[in-house]
Amino acid sequence: MGWMQGFPPPDKRLLSAADGSFFEFPALRWSVVHMRQFLPTTGVSRGLGAPVPFDHALDAGIDAVRFTPRGAEETMTWEASLAKNYTDGILILHHGDIVYERYSGELTEARKHAAMSVTKSFTGTLAAVLAAEGTLDPAAPVTEYIPELKDSAFGDASVRQVMNMTTSLQYSEDYADPEAEVWRYAKAGNPFPKSEGYAGPVGYYEYLQTLEKAPERDHGEAFAYKTPNADLLGWIIARASGKSVDTLLAEKVWSRLGMEQAAYFQVDAKGTPSAGGGLSAGLRDMGRFGQMLLNDGAWQGEQVLPEAAIADIREGGSQKKFAKSDHPKLEGWSYKNMWWITHNDHEAFAARGVHGQTIYVDPTADMVIVRFASHPVAANAANDPTSLPAYQAVADYLMARDTQANQ
Amino acid sequence: MGWMQGFPPPDKRLLSAADGSFFEFPALRWSVVHMRQFLPTTGVSRGLGAPVPFDHALDAGIDAVRFTPRGAEETMTWEASLAKNYTDGILILHHGDIVYERYSGELTEARKHAAMSVTKSFTGTLAAVLAAEGTLDPAAPVTEYIPELKDSAFGDASVRQVMNMTTSLQYSEDYADPEAEVWRYAKAGNPFPKSEGYAGPVGYYEYLQTLEKAPERDHGEAFAYKTPNADLLGWIIARASGKSVDTLLAEKVWSRLGMEQAAYFQVDAKGTPSAGGGLSAGLRDMGRFGQMLLNDGAWQGEQVLPEAAIADIREGGSQKKFAKSDHPKLEGWSYKNMWWITHNDHEAFAARGVHGQTIYVDPTADMVIVRFASHPVAANAANDPTSLPAYQAVADYLMARDTQANQ
Repeated sequence: MGWMQGFPPPDKRLLSAADGSFFEFPALRWSVVHMRQFLPTTGVSRGLGAPVPFDHALDAGIDAVRFTPRGAEETMTWEASLAKNYTDGILILHHGDIVYERYSGELTEARKHAAMSVTKSFTGTLAAVLAAEGTLDPAAPVTEYIPELKDSAFGDASVRQVMNMTTSLQYSEDYADPEAEVWRYAKAGNPFPKSEGYAGPVGYYEYLQTLEKAPERDHGEAFAYKTPNADLLGWIIARASGKSVDTLLAEKVWSRLGMEQAAYFQVDAKGTPSAGGGLSAGLRDMGRFGQMLLNDGAWQGEQVLPEAAIADIREGGSQKKFAKSDHPKLEGWSYKNMWWITHNDHEAFAARGVHGQTIYVDPTADMVIVRFASHPVAANAANDPTSLPAYQAVADYLMARDTQANQ
Repeated sequence: MGWMQGFPPPDKRLLSAADGSFFEFPALRWSVVHMRQFLPTTGVSRGLGAPVPFDHALDAGIDAVRFTPRGAEETMTWEASLAKNYTDGILILHHGDIVYERYSGELTEARKHAAMSVTKSFTGTLAAVLAAEGTLDPAAPVTEYIPELKDSAFGDASVRQVMNMTTSLQYSEDYADPEAEVWRYAKAGNPFPKSEGYAGPVGYYEYLQTLEKAPERDHGEAFAYKTPNADLLGWIIARASGKSVDTLLAEKVWSRLGMEQAAYFQVDAKGTPSAGGGLSAGLRDMGRFGQMLLNDGAWQGEQVLPEAAIADIREGGSQKKFAKSDHPKLEGWSYKNMWWITHNDHEAFAARGVHGQTIYVDPTADMVIVRFASHPVAANAANDPTSLPAYQAVADYLMARDTQANQ
C-alpha cells in the first residue's frame, strides 16, 4: 500500500500517531509492525546470549486442512482462513517443533508485531508467578499495594478480582461509542504532550484513581473485560516486586527462553509500560513463550517459571461468572490470570488481542499457535468464526497424524 | 539520583521530553541510556544469529596509566580521568580483544547509550560505502539526488562538500545562544505534535529546504561543523540506495558483525531517522564497528565493507580547510566522510559526539577505544583535555607492553 514509503513519504502515505491516522485500517496493517516509530517505548532485553532456534518439521499438509467456520454452511481451508483473517504472521508448533510458519504484509521473521491485549496474558502470568513465589498475595486488598486507590472503584477490590477481571467498573471499552470511557483512558495514556487546558489524568496510574464502580453490581460477581484491570495489575506487580513489568518480563521470561529478538512496550508520558496492550514482539518469540507454558513452565529442561503459576492459569476461572459477561460466543469459557480458558476437551487456553492477535495453547494436541493479524474490525468476534474452528481442525489433524505414525 | 524511579516516579524525579527536562544535566545522565522511552524510534536489526563474543585479555595495569591533561601541570591516572569525564561506559580493544571495560551510572553491558554525533560517522561511512560501490557519486551536485533543494543553500553544493562538511551554511549550532538556528532545527525535528500556530518546517527534510548560505564564504572553502549536513547526507543516501539509513545500516553493518544488541535511531514526525545524532547502541557493538574499520572493513576474516571506503575515510580531508574552522584545539586535524582524522603519528581517527561520546581508532597501536559519557558540558572541548592525551597514553602503554613481550 506504500505507507511510509519514500523519502519523505508523500502526504497521502504519511502516518502519524498525533492525528490517529496510524491506527486506522488499512494503515493499521503497516503500523502494527512499526509501533515504536510512532510512540515512546521501553525495551525488554533478551540478554546477550545466543538465540535457541526451533527445530523445523514443516508439514505441507496443513494448508489443505478444512474446517467449518462458525455459523457457516461450507467448509474452508486453513490457507484460505489466513487471508480472510488479515493474518500478518502465523506459527504452529507441534511437539515443540515448527510445523508451519508464514509471514505476510509488513511482518518478517526479524520484525516485531503489536501483541495488543495478548500483553495482558504476559502481565497476568507475571502476577501468577509472583503469587507462586510468595511476593504477591492475590487475596490481599488492592489498597495493600496501592493505597492511592482507596477512594476509587478499586478501594474494596481484591488483587484476585483484578487478576481475573471480576471487578465492577464504570468503564466502557466500546470503541464505536465516542462517549465511552475508553477515550478518556486513551487520552490519559497518550505519551504526547497534553493539549493546553487539558485537566484530565496523566498516565495510567492517575487514570486508575478516577475510575468508579459500576452501580449495577459488586466486585467478584461477574467477569467484565476492562483493560484498566491489566494496567492496575502492572502497577501492583511493580509495587510488589519493585520492578516494572518490562523489567520483570525481561528478567523472568525474555532472557530465559533463547529469544531471537528483544521485545518492547509502549509507555505513557511517565514512562509506565502499557501492561494492558503495549507489547510488541517477534512471532517465534511469542511461540517460545507459549511452548514454555505448554511445558508447565519448563524450557529446554529448565524450570523457568514455577509450575504452580502455570497450573493456576490453566485450571481456569469461574465459567459461571464468565457467562454473565458480554462474550456469549465464547460459550463455556472462563478468564483467569488474564488468560482465556476454553474448557474444551483439549483444555486449550489462549491469550487474545484485538484485530486478531493470539497465542493459542492446546496441551492435548501438544500444539501452540501464534497469530499476528491486522483485521479491520478490532473485536475478535469478527475473526473467531474463521479462527477458533481452524485451530481445532489443525489440532485434530496433527493428532490424527500422530496416531497414524504410531500405528 | 533516583530519576524515573518509583511507581510512578515522584514529580521531582519525573523526566519528560515534552518540557526538555530529560536532557538537562544531571538528568541527562539517566536519559542518555533511555532515549527510546522519551522519543519514537526505529530499530536497527542485528539479525537473528548468535552474537560473536570478543575474547578478553583484561589488563589491570591500564587504570594506573598516567598522562598529562592538556594545559595542566600535573599528571592524572586513566582511572581518574573516567570520573572526571562523566564516563558511563568505556571499552578498550587491543589486537581485537577486550583489554578494558567499565560501566557506570545507568549503563550496563546489556543496555544502549545515545551516540549523539558519533551517529554522523555511521552515516558518513554508509555514504563512503555507497560511493565505493558506485551507487552514490560524491562529485555530483546535491540536487541530482534531492531536486527539492535547488533554492536552498545546497542548490550549488556537491555531495562531497556535504560529506566533508565544507558547505557554507547560515547556521549556528551554539546551544548557549537562544537565537541560534539550531533551535529552529530542533523544533522541526521534534517528533511530537507541533504547537498550534506553528508554521515552521516539519521534519529534517523540510528544514533542510529552508537553509541559506552563509554570506561570508562559498561552499568548499572551509570545514564548518553543522549537523544539517549529516541529515542531508542521510537523505541523499536514502534517495541513492532506496533505503533509509536505519535500514541500510542494519543491512550493511549491524547484521554482519555478530552484534549483541539491536541498535535504534530517533526519528522525526515523518519517521525519518536522525542521521546527524539519533543512534543509540551497546558499548561493545560500537567496539565491533570500530574494530571492523581498523581491519579495513574486514570482520572475522570476511570483507564486510569495501576496503576502498575505509581507505577513503582514513586518508582524511584537508587540514587547511579544517584549520579555518572553529576547532582551534584540534590542531592539524581534518574531517572527512563525517569522521575526525587526527593526522597524528599513529594515524588515529575518531567519531565524536557531544557530552563525550567517541569511537577512537588507533591503527598504529592496534587499539579501539569506545566511550559513552554524559558530561555536563555538551562541547567536547570540555572533556578533550582529559581524554585525547589519555587515549594516546594508553596507546603508548599497550605498544610498550607489546615491545616488551616481543623482547
